[in-house]
Amino acid sequence: MSITNRDRIEKLRAAMRAAGIDYYMIPTGDFHNSEYVAEHFRTREFFSGFTGSAGTLVVSMDEAYLWTDGRYFIQAAGELEGSGIGLMKMSEPGVPTIREFLGQKMGEGSVLGFDGRCVSCKEGRALEAAARKAKGSLRTDLDLADGIWEDRPGLPCHPVIVLGDEYTGEDIESKLGRLREKAEEYGCVSYIDSKLDCIMWLLNLRGEDVECNPVALSHMLVDQSNVYLFIQEGEITGELRAYAALHRISLLPYDDLEDFLGIYDHRGDLMCDPASISYSVYLAAKKGAANAACRLKEEESPLEELKCVKNEVEMSNIRSCYRQDSAALCRFIMWVTERVNDTSAEPVTESGAAHYLDHLRSLLPDFMGLSFATISAYGPNAAMMHYEAVPGISDAELKPEGMLLVDSGGQYMTGTTDVTRTIALGPVTDEMRKHYTLTAVSNLQLQGAVFLDGCTGANLDILAREPMWREGLDYKCGTGHGIGYFLNVHESPPSIRWRVFPGRQDKALAPGMIVSDEPGVYLEGRYGIRIETILEVVEHETNEWGRFLAFEPLTWVPFDRKLIDVRYLTPQTRELLNDYHARVREELAPLMDSREQEWLFAQTEPF
Amino acid sequence: MSITNRDRIEKLRAAMRAAGIDYYMIPTGDFHNSEYVAEHFRTREFFSGFTGSAGTLVVSMDEAYLWTDGRYFIQAAGELEGSGIGLMKMSEPGVPTIREFLGQKMGEGSVLGFDGRCVSCKEGRALEAAARKAKGSLRTDLDLADGIWEDRPGLPCHPVIVLGDEYTGEDIESKLGRLREKAEEYGCVSYIDSKLDCIMWLLNLRGEDVECNPVALSHMLVDQSNVYLFIQEGEITGELRAYAALHRISLLPYDDLEDFLGIYDHRGDLMCDPASISYSVYLAAKKGAANAACRLKEEESPLEELKCVKNEVEMSNIRSCYRQDSAALCRFIMWVTERVNDTSAEPVTESGAAHYLDHLRSLLPDFMGLSFATISAYGPNAAMMHYEAVPGISDAELKPEGMLLVDSGGQYMTGTTDVTRTIALGPVTDEMRKHYTLTAVSNLQLQGAVFLDGCTGANLDILAREPMWREGLDYKCGTGHGIGYFLNVHESPPSIRWRVFPGRQDKALAPGMIVSDEPGVYLEGRYGIRIETILEVVEHETNEWGRFLAFEPLTWVPFDRKLIDVRYLTPQTRELLNDYHARVREELAPLMDSREQEWLFAQTEPF
Repeated sequence: MSITNRDRIEKLRAAMRAAGIDYYMIPTGDFHNSEYVAEHFRTREFFSGFTGSAGTLVVSMDEAYLWTDGRYFIQAAGELEGSGIGLMKMSEPGVPTIREFLGQKMGEGSVLGFDGRCVSCKEGRALEAAARKAKGSLRTDLDLADGIWEDRPGLPCHPVIVLGDEYTGEDIESKLGRLREKAEEYGCVSYIDSKLDCIMWLLNLRGEDVECNPVALSHMLVDQSNVYLFIQEGEITGELRAYAALHRISLLPYDDLEDFLGIYDHRGDLMCDPASISYSVYLAAKKGAANAACRLKEEESPLEELKCVKNEVEMSNIRSCYRQDSAALCRFIMWVTERVNDTSAEPVTESGAAHYLDHLRSLLPDFMGLSFATISAYGPNAAMMHYEAVPGISDAELKPEGMLLVDSGGQYMTGTTDVTRTIALGPVTDEMRKHYTLTAVSNLQLQGAVFLDGCTGANLDILAREPMWREGLDYKCGTGHGIGYFLNVHESPPSIRWRVFPGRQDKALAPGMIVSDEPGVYLEGRYGIRIETILEVVEHETNEWGRFLAFEPLTWVPFDRKLIDVRYLTPQTRELLNDYHARVREELAPLMDSREQEWLFAQTEPF
Repeated sequence: MSITNRDRIEKLRAAMRAAGIDYYMIPTGDFHNSEYVAEHFRTREFFSGFTGSAGTLVVSMDEAYLWTDGRYFIQAAGELEGSGIGLMKMSEPGVPTIREFLGQKMGEGSVLGFDGRCVSCKEGRALEAAARKAKGSLRTDLDLADGIWEDRPGLPCHPVIVLGDEYTGEDIESKLGRLREKAEEYGCVSYIDSKLDCIMWLLNLRGEDVECNPVALSHMLVDQSNVYLFIQEGEITGELRAYAALHRISLLPYDDLEDFLGIYDHRGDLMCDPASISYSVYLAAKKGAANAACRLKEEESPLEELKCVKNEVEMSNIRSCYRQDSAALCRFIMWVTERVNDTSAEPVTESGAAHYLDHLRSLLPDFMGLSFATISAYGPNAAMMHYEAVPGISDAELKPEGMLLVDSGGQYMTGTTDVTRTIALGPVTDEMRKHYTLTAVSNLQLQGAVFLDGCTGANLDILAREPMWREGLDYKCGTGHGIGYFLNVHESPPSIRWRVFPGRQDKALAPGMIVSDEPGVYLEGRYGIRIETILEVVEHETNEWGRFLAFEPLTWVPFDRKLIDVRYLTPQTRELLNDYHARVREELAPLMDSREQEWLFAQTEPF
């Protein structure tokens, strides 16, 4: 492996020399800053041999370094061995950031190269500033892997589907009207976007080009009369062609956007969100606008804001989708606890359990795939928040003791689900029960919140953290994220987290938003607990004091009563738990056979 | 009254005509944006006859309007009657803001005048933009009251005192060193400030020029080697002159700052906080810097940030100061409940009770005055958050029933106090007890918070609001504010409020900050409840999950047990209340005589 990589790096250096590039940076990203990247984009993996999901390679004529975060220090050290590539442990004391490194190394006149399509506008501009400061320059129009990676997989390319109003609740014309209004508010006549879930939402399309995200690789330019959709020929079906004709959508080749921005007839200012386009698209848009004596205005994407508030058709689909999905998870919990405790049965591993759950989901109506790779983590493995069981590498056998954490979700025509339950497979310790109950209290306190219109996730987060903080515990992640409708499982806004990032104002929670509620306890080398319920923001009461909002659960899966220690429940959270369990019965019983109902009734007995 | 005012307005118009001014605006403010303004600055009151604490008068050749907020609609309507001045009810539908009004009225070439010293830099710039948009201009160097208000009181002018290290805990040289470091961080060599509490804090001085605020009218310019203090001759004592000589403080006339900025030898960029200087000072500073080819850099005041974290000497003084102050309030509560229930005694009014409390405070060591006018509000009057009893106008007689709300505080060499308790004077209703107990729960939940370093008041506010919101109630103000050390009773940062104002990042709570915790229930025409305890931010625990902080009370006054309905206490808040009462006993008993102790022990029995 490492000799192959040494050889590849040498070829890269030859290509750099030919192009006059002194430092070449290879990040991990597609042209849309997607959460998952297809094989075609795994250039960093091709050159470095490091297979983790996050990392950036920087190569000069005599050095090569890979930056990655704490999740991957051990794995990266192993995979880089013998490659001549040094490991830069991000956020460790004394380790420079890439920009600091380049600032120190780049001399006057030196050239930093990267594929500007794979770098966000924001990051690209920061690198531009770093290069300028070092009196160097950038070259961002080359993908040097092109001539070296011979058997490189092609771009993902799958036919696109058009969603009907029974799924979307709002047709494309109405959505375009709202977008155009927003652009006008900012004094702009056209709008550019490369963020795939925003494009899909706006045009009521879905694809399957990104793992677990039902989106199609595309870029989009919308003006007052037309939509220009840049998409691969192979994605275009007869249905899409007819739909496009009907709604004045011009279908143009996927990689033509940058050229098109040069010839496009700008009739006013162009609007973009720098978080939604790549550095290359940004450069082309800025140049195109400037040539037409127009401005490129930067504003937060209006599509994110519109998309996150689900309409009543979407909500009604989502509610029934979540009931089905919850019932499947209940079936899984029944199965896995029985199976693990059946001494006559074959042993089950983490990945085996995950496959069975995935199978149960695949039987549900409107199932389209998983919304992310199922996390099935047993014992100490559950302390790693993003653990993935892989047969042959790490795939623990489930035993009739301790806890199994299962975080999973599906893509359906009727919604995107995400749910975590932690399950006792047999005897558990008092400490496990205490930590599970604390997590339940955290989860329920947020679920039970009543709050004034205008509140953000930063205002509410402490309702979930307070029971943890009181015990000197914390979980090193947000409490909740937004979720798409048959789209990305991680969507923002909204979010529930206490830290506010400077510069980016938190959005207020509003009816129709859906958000996860997933506190946890993670004890390295011992165990991990997470309870995740998806909540809908709903109207609560409007009176002289204001408009009060609240949450209503969408997920209906019982808490594990073997893991509840009532001593750690407050009277209020005990009531919330009993109310939740009563609702779980009500929502799920109609979807269950008598054996399942028996289980359900036992699990949801009041405390 | 109104004829007098008509006459005064006509004189003002004559002065406007002579100066070529079409619109003249008179706000309510001194040269330092102080919370309270001295007689000398009551120009708006002089011309309009309106005596409220907030309002702005705008006069043109044929119109005159007064803008004020909801607290004063009734009072202003009465006081303006017959004056020819129209009332603009701020925030009412259809009522323009002053800027909107000027935008509509000002024609091309028209001139808006105001005394730029009485308008904040921010407001001045907004008016400048409004005038520019209307193609008009500004004239801000005239105080037109000067030739009209014949018996105008002079500027307040009292001798300044120098505080020793036993009070401040940090000498001037150390503070100046920290300020200079901060300025350097921003690349500046000098710093300008007109905010009185910041100047007093930095130089370890105190004055008595603003009601309830122990500050001296002054401006300040600090550079790497000198301090220029602009202050009236009459404030300068021998002590101050010697102190100034010792610490290279140049004492210059109070009104010389603007001229000085023109001749000052700028040796680099000048730093200011636009929130801390007037529009006039801003204009002079900008011009002075530009003439010297330097920049005027705008940054948040480093002094606010330094001042709000109290050092160990200050904290130790504050703790003992609050114990004394709490004991005085206990004496008052004993006295007022006994007195009101004594049928043989003379009746007591709200203001009579306030005077007695003020008297009790004045007996305490290091007493220097009140930190604000005592609020003593009985029955429905307490529903007005900022009620002030005034004999002859509104001064209810206290009866042996219902509730009395008392919000009060003192200035001491050892600290500034602020405390509110609501007291049952006799029989109370179940609803009053419910609302009092909810307020107690709110207060205790915030007091009992444990939170990670980095949290802001916006993260914590919901701990206090949650019990209110759950009942469909709210209080229309923040939950808490910062407090100075023998300085202003309202200081920021920190603050506890859920709404975050765009643009101004909330500061994280840190050990040494002190903050009020004052939730309440206010039912118009019925009653008002507020419980205010001052809290100190303290270290709690540092472990692998982070550095946890918590609060420790500074105020030690029992809650009124006749108003507690235990059914509304949660087990956690009952424990917090009992713990608090146990601490109250411990802290106060040594300061009390046996009769007082008897009362104290009865009030602090565990629930």
